Amino acid sequence: MKILILGGNGYLGWPTSLFFSKQGHEVSIVDNFVKKKMELEFGFKPLIPTKTLHKRVDCWNKNQNNPINFYVGDLLNHRFIKDLLADIRPEVIVHYAEQPSAPYSMSNRERAIFTQQNNVMGNLNLLFAIKKNCPDAHLVKLGTLGEYGTPNIDIEEGWLNVEHNGRKDRMLYPKKPGSFYHLSKVHDSANIEFACRIWDLKCTDLNQGVVYGNFTPEIDLDFENLCTSFHYDEVFGTIINRFCTQSVANYPLTVYGTGNQKRGYINIIDTINCINLASTNPPKKGEFRVFNQFTDFKSLNEMAEVIIKSSKNLGIKAKAKKIQNPRKEMEEHYYNPKNTSLISLGLKPIKFNENTIEKDIKLITKYKKNIDQEYFMPTVKWEI
Amino acid sequence: MKILILGGNGYLGWPTSLFFSKQGHEVSIVDNFVKKKMELEFGFKPLIPTKTLHKRVDCWNKNQNNPINFYVGDLLNHRFIKDLLADIRPEVIVHYAEQPSAPYSMSNRERAIFTQQNNVMGNLNLLFAIKKNCPDAHLVKLGTLGEYGTPNIDIEEGWLNVEHNGRKDRMLYPKKPGSFYHLSKVHDSANIEFACRIWDLKCTDLNQGVVYGNFTPEIDLDFENLCTSFHYDEVFGTIINRFCTQSVANYPLTVYGTGNQKRGYINIIDTINCINLASTNPPKKGEFRVFNQFTDFKSLNEMAEVIIKSSKNLGIKAKAKKIQNPRKEMEEHYYNPKNTSLISLGLKPIKFNENTIEKDIKLITKYKKNIDQEYFMPTVKWEI
Repeated sequence: MKILILGGNGYLGWPTSLFFSKQGHEVSIVDNFVKKKMELEFGFKPLIPTKTLHKRVDCWNKNQNNPINFYVGDLLNHRFIKDLLADIRPEVIVHYAEQPSAPYSMSNRERAIFTQQNNVMGNLNLLFAIKKNCPDAHLVKLGTLGEYGTPNIDIEEGWLNVEHNGRKDRMLYPKKPGSFYHLSKVHDSANIEFACRIWDLKCTDLNQGVVYGNFTPEIDLDFENLCTSFHYDEVFGTIINRFCTQSVANYPLTVYGTGNQKRGYINIIDTINCINLASTNPPKKGEFRVFNQFTDFKSLNEMAEVIIKSSKNLGIKAKAKKIQNPRKEMEEHYYNPKNTSLISLGLKPIKFNENTIEKDIKLITKYKKNIDQEYFMPTVKWEI
Repeated sequence: MKILILGGNGYLGWPTSLFFSKQGHEVSIVDNFVKKKMELEFGFKPLIPTKTLHKRVDCWNKNQNNPINFYVGDLLNHRFIKDLLADIRPEVIVHYAEQPSAPYSMSNRERAIFTQQNNVMGNLNLLFAIKKNCPDAHLVKLGTLGEYGTPNIDIEEGWLNVEHNGRKDRMLYPKKPGSFYHLSKVHDSANIEFACRIWDLKCTDLNQGVVYGNFTPEIDLDFENLCTSFHYDEVFGTIINRFCTQSVANYPLTVYGTGNQKRGYINIIDTINCINLASTNPPKKGEFRVFNQFTDFKSLNEMAEVIIKSSKNLGIKAKAKKIQNPRKEMEEHYYNPKNTSLISLGLKPIKFNENTIEKDIKLITKYKKNIDQEYFMPTVKWEI
């Protein structure tokens, strides 16, 4: 299978690329490195030193017999992506190449605009390029579970069967996104649904929960040379990764508000398993298919509790601390998101519990000296 | 009342400005003239010669005792709009300043991107400027009834009470827009709803039907010097205006497809009445209020029939001709959009019938020599 990974330098894009290469697929990756620039705007560095993408690709290609192709390019450059698709003619395009942080998008006007500009226009250029040069390709697009917000009804997978005044229709699930970043993903989904409807493209839109973890079987082959970008800061760090790092740093786990907010989450290995399941089970032409990509959900307090227990088993005394919520979000709410599609395709979820998280806490401990406690407290507030 | 009209040079923006000035309000208007450039890309001219905005404003200000202020500027220039709102501190902002054509947005990649870029980012800049400099201002935003598409259930006004698996929520109405232009309006609405929710702004989002007509009481004061931009071409001409012009030109009324597609419509005077009703009955802080702004709906065939009858009364033999539909849209569908909000605020709709449309057909007849029949047939197709 010819597969193109957009955003191949990222936390998820990189291990996804390794996985598909290891499976024997023809893998090409693209990145524009803008995420690294964004990290530097805040002065944030990932916990664990990573090699440049060039070095990682070299290392992989020297030691494996299925080389990865690597291109530097930007989806905002429509000629680049159009020509690349003409050259490669990929069968699957995994699109991770978006600004991925809600706090980044809420930090000021310029970054809000950048987020929607980069994500929505980049995705539009991609749709036009697919339509022109590989209309049969399966677009696997990364969205987020946060697009739905916290509605008072069950969260279905992208579509909702609506009954109203005695009549019925199947409609896009009405979303209530919580940041300009989340909104950008909602806009993307709407644009893609239209492209499927009008141009007969096919897409799987993955509304993913919060990802955590460091290890994948491919990274484990040579951790030091292949490891992926792990963030624990307030802007780019996902919550479980940040809690684990705070625990190792003997810093209170910063629970925003009451901590009763519930969120879906997923291990990095399961992210890749889901991408694989979606890619190898494509939708039909013209179909806009949505999967909710998470394995379980918990409240922030419950997540903190698991990490505190796991830390205790490792001799670390951790505790949680409720701090003022920098976000505007519901803290007490109903939450029942569905994830039956990926389970029914065969996903066997990795459990998030005090045993499975130990390996990550041990890894973070190894890099404890790199932890910068100044990254922990939220400075970005939803009131700009 | 201090009122700012964005897009004040447009078909609707201009007569709206005159109306509010005549009512004694303090009116400022902004335009960037990009719409005129877009028309020139296709070589289209409006039917009736209009004076430059400068001349029209001069004429109005000389003959009326309540002058209009006029600024040249672009919402994509965030400093311009931020500073302008700081200077004026408007109480009402009527936002017409968007690329208004579905076919334009579907004509190629560049124009699709331009449409979403111009509309979505311009609107975002406006939201940030309001938040910073006049957070109590009432944003009156123009959207379109076409955002909803043609769902198989009743079209409510922006929000839907959903009951699902025994639980309830009030959610944004799930939309199914039919072009990149319509999508841009959906994205705008989502961004504005968020700004109301997070920043406590207040907005009325007007999902407007197809507008027709030329006359308003203020334009009638000096038609030649004050008339507004009337388009009848395939890209910028709205359907009733195009049908009327085709009739006068003895050209068959170009009905797309079966002509059973139903659309809401509204007279230009009622557009202004609706803007006035919304402006003088503002929502409360934090409220994202949606009104469907149309007075009736008919199928394309029924609209053509009215115009053919009216033409006959004027001695013009008109006929309709079904042509291949350049759009991808449902031609047979349920359609029941609601418009109770504006009616309950006091709107007394102008009827669209063979008598009321006569005045417009007569006016077009006066300018018959200007009609260019090459503008009529659709060249923009939804398959790009």
